Amino acid sequence: MAELRQNVITRDWVIINPERARRPDQFAKTDGEKLSSTPYVPDCPFCRGNEQLTMNEILRIDGKDGWNVRVIPNKFPALTEQGERVHKVNGIYRSITAVGYHEVIVEHPLHNTTLALMSADAVSHVLSVYRQRYSIIRQDPRIEAIIIFKNHGEEAGTSIVHPHSQLVATPIVPYQIRSRIDEAIRYFDDTGECVGCRTVQDELRAKERVIHETEHFVCFIPYAALSPFHTWIFPKRHSCSFDAITQEELNDLAVMMKIVLAKLYVGLNNPSYNYSIRSIPTREQQAEYFHWYLSIIPRVSKTAGFELGSGMFINTAVPEDSASFLREVKVSD
Amino acid sequence: MAELRQNVITRDWVIINPERARRPDQFAKTDGEKLSSTPYVPDCPFCRGNEQLTMNEILRIDGKDGWNVRVIPNKFPALTEQGERVHKVNGIYRSITAVGYHEVIVEHPLHNTTLALMSADAVSHVLSVYRQRYSIIRQDPRIEAIIIFKNHGEEAGTSIVHPHSQLVATPIVPYQIRSRIDEAIRYFDDTGECVGCRTVQDELRAKERVIHETEHFVCFIPYAALSPFHTWIFPKRHSCSFDAITQEELNDLAVMMKIVLAKLYVGLNNPSYNYSIRSIPTREQQAEYFHWYLSIIPRVSKTAGFELGSGMFINTAVPEDSASFLREVKVSD
Repeated sequence: MAELRQNVITRDWVIINPERARRPDQFAKTDGEKLSSTPYVPDCPFCRGNEQLTMNEILRIDGKDGWNVRVIPNKFPALTEQGERVHKVNGIYRSITAVGYHEVIVEHPLHNTTLALMSADAVSHVLSVYRQRYSIIRQDPRIEAIIIFKNHGEEAGTSIVHPHSQLVATPIVPYQIRSRIDEAIRYFDDTGECVGCRTVQDELRAKERVIHETEHFVCFIPYAALSPFHTWIFPKRHSCSFDAITQEELNDLAVMMKIVLAKLYVGLNNPSYNYSIRSIPTREQQAEYFHWYLSIIPRVSKTAGFELGSGMFINTAVPEDSASFLREVKVSD
Repeated sequence: MAELRQNVITRDWVIINPERARRPDQFAKTDGEKLSSTPYVPDCPFCRGNEQLTMNEILRIDGKDGWNVRVIPNKFPALTEQGERVHKVNGIYRSITAVGYHEVIVEHPLHNTTLALMSADAVSHVLSVYRQRYSIIRQDPRIEAIIIFKNHGEEAGTSIVHPHSQLVATPIVPYQIRSRIDEAIRYFDDTGECVGCRTVQDELRAKERVIHETEHFVCFIPYAALSPFHTWIFPKRHSCSFDAITQEELNDLAVMMKIVLAKLYVGLNNPSYNYSIRSIPTREQQAEYFHWYLSIIPRVSKTAGFELGSGMFINTAVPEDSASFLREVKVSD
C-alpha cells in the first residue's frame, strides 16, 4: 500500500508509491552508459601519458608502471584557492568571495574502466587520495565544508568519460548541511544517541533493506529512499568525519564500494549515478551527534515540479524490494 | 568575479560562476520542445471531445464552445482521497497513510497550445481553477500542505504534451517548507517584517533583477538564483496564502504569467520548465511572516553530485544578466 515515510536523518518525507512501481529490473537501462572501448585516448586529459594536458598536479599515487591516481585542479573551478574570505552583507543581500578548492581526482590511468570494474586495491587508492586531500584542506581556516562527489554518466552531469571524481571545499556551511546537523543535535539532546548509530543498529537488525555488510560498513536502502536504488553506506563505528577513517576501514570500504557499484552496474546495466560523502563541517571533528556516510543516487528517475515545489520526493520503488533485488545480484569480490 | 550568494528566503547558498558562464542566449535550446501540430489528437485523454477517457471529472469551467478548463483525478495518484490519516511511529521508522489529493488541471481544450501562447483570459481561467481547488481542499482536516505545479516538456518530467498542471495535497508539511517557515518566523522576530515584503521592496528599488512589473505583481530573478533563469513572481501585497488572491489580482497575475512564460518561450526557444506555487501550509492563513510566490525553473542545466551532496547549487549565469536578457525579449501583451 502507498504510504509516506520520513527519513529520520534528513527529515525528508517521501511518498512511496508501489501502485506506480515498476519491477526492480525494469529500472535497468536498455541502453546503459557505454564504457569506452579503448584504454587510451590521445586527447583525453586524464589518460596516463597525457599529463602535459593537465598542469599543476596536486597529488599522485605511483604504481609500478606510473601513477595510479592523480589529483589536479578543475579546469573550470567553481571556487579558487587564491584570495581572502570576505563576507559582504548589504541588507538582504549576502555574499562571500568565491574562495575554496575545486579538484579533480583521476581515479585510474585507464580510460575504459569504472570503479565497479576496478580491483579493490585500485578503489582503495582512490579513497586514500580522498582522505589525504580532505585532511589537508580542512586545515585551511577559510574552509567550512568539504564535499567529495562523483558524477558517473551523462545523466549524472558529467561530460568526461575517463573515471574521475571531484572535491569542492566551500567557505560556508551549506544550509542543507547546517539543517541536518541541527536536527542531529536535537535528536542527540532528546535521546542521548547519534541518529546515525541508531540507524545502523536498526537496519542491521531489520535486515530487509540491507544490501551488503562488511566488517566495518553496512550498505542499505534508506527506509525513506528518495528515489529507486538510493543507497547509503554507513561506517558501523561512530565517526563524524570521513578523514578519521583508519587504513583498515578504508580498505574495507573499498571492497564494499566495489561490490555495491558492481551490483548497480550488473543489475541496472551501468546506470548514470552520483555519489557523495556526507561528512561534518571542518570545524567540528569530535561530534557525538553526527555520523558520516556515503550516499549513492542512481539516476533512474526524474525530478519534476512537485519535488522542486516542496522538497518532497515520490519514489515509485519500494525500498525493501530494491534492496532485495540488489542483494541477489551476483558479483565477484 | 565569482562569488557565493545567499538567498535570504530559502537560505540556500549558490555559487555564481561567471567564468563558466555562457551568454544568456546560449541557454536557448537548439531543438526546443515542439508543440503538436494538430489541435486535436483522437487518443489524447485531455483533448476536448475525449472526456469519456477521463471519468470522475472534479470541476470544469465552461465557455461558449464547451469546457475551457477541466480538473480530473490523476490516473496514477501519488496520494488518494479515501482513508484516514494515520501516523505510525516505530522507533526511527515514521510513516503516515498516503491520504491526500492528486489532481490534474487540463489547462485548455486544444492540444497544440501552451500557457505562453494562450490569451490572458485563458490563463486567468486556469488560475481561477487553481484557487477554487486550493480553497476547497484546504478545508479537509487531513491536509497540511497544497502544492500546485506544472511540468512542461520532457526534461521537466512530463510525458503528456497536452497543456496541463497538477495539484498535490499532502497529509504532512514537507520538511523543506517547514524549514523555510521557521526561517521566515525568525526573520520576522528579528526585524518585525516579512522577508518576502522586504525582498519585493528591495528588488523593485534595485531594478537590475526585475524582468517585468504589473500593478499587483513583480517578476524577478532571485539574487541567489539556483540555476540560469530561475524566476520568481511575487505579489506586491502581503499575503501568505495563494487562495487569498482577489479576482483583480488573479487577472493581473494571468497577464504577468503569460508575458513571462512568453519571454522564456521566445528567448530560450520553448525550454522545458517547472513552476510551483509556494504557499503557506493550510492551517496558517493569516501569517505575517510568510509571503506566497510562484517559482519558475527552466530546465536548462543539470544537477549533479555536488548539488546532491550539499544542497548547494552552481549557477553559471549571473542573475543580473539573465534578468536583463529576459527584460529585452519582446512579446505581445
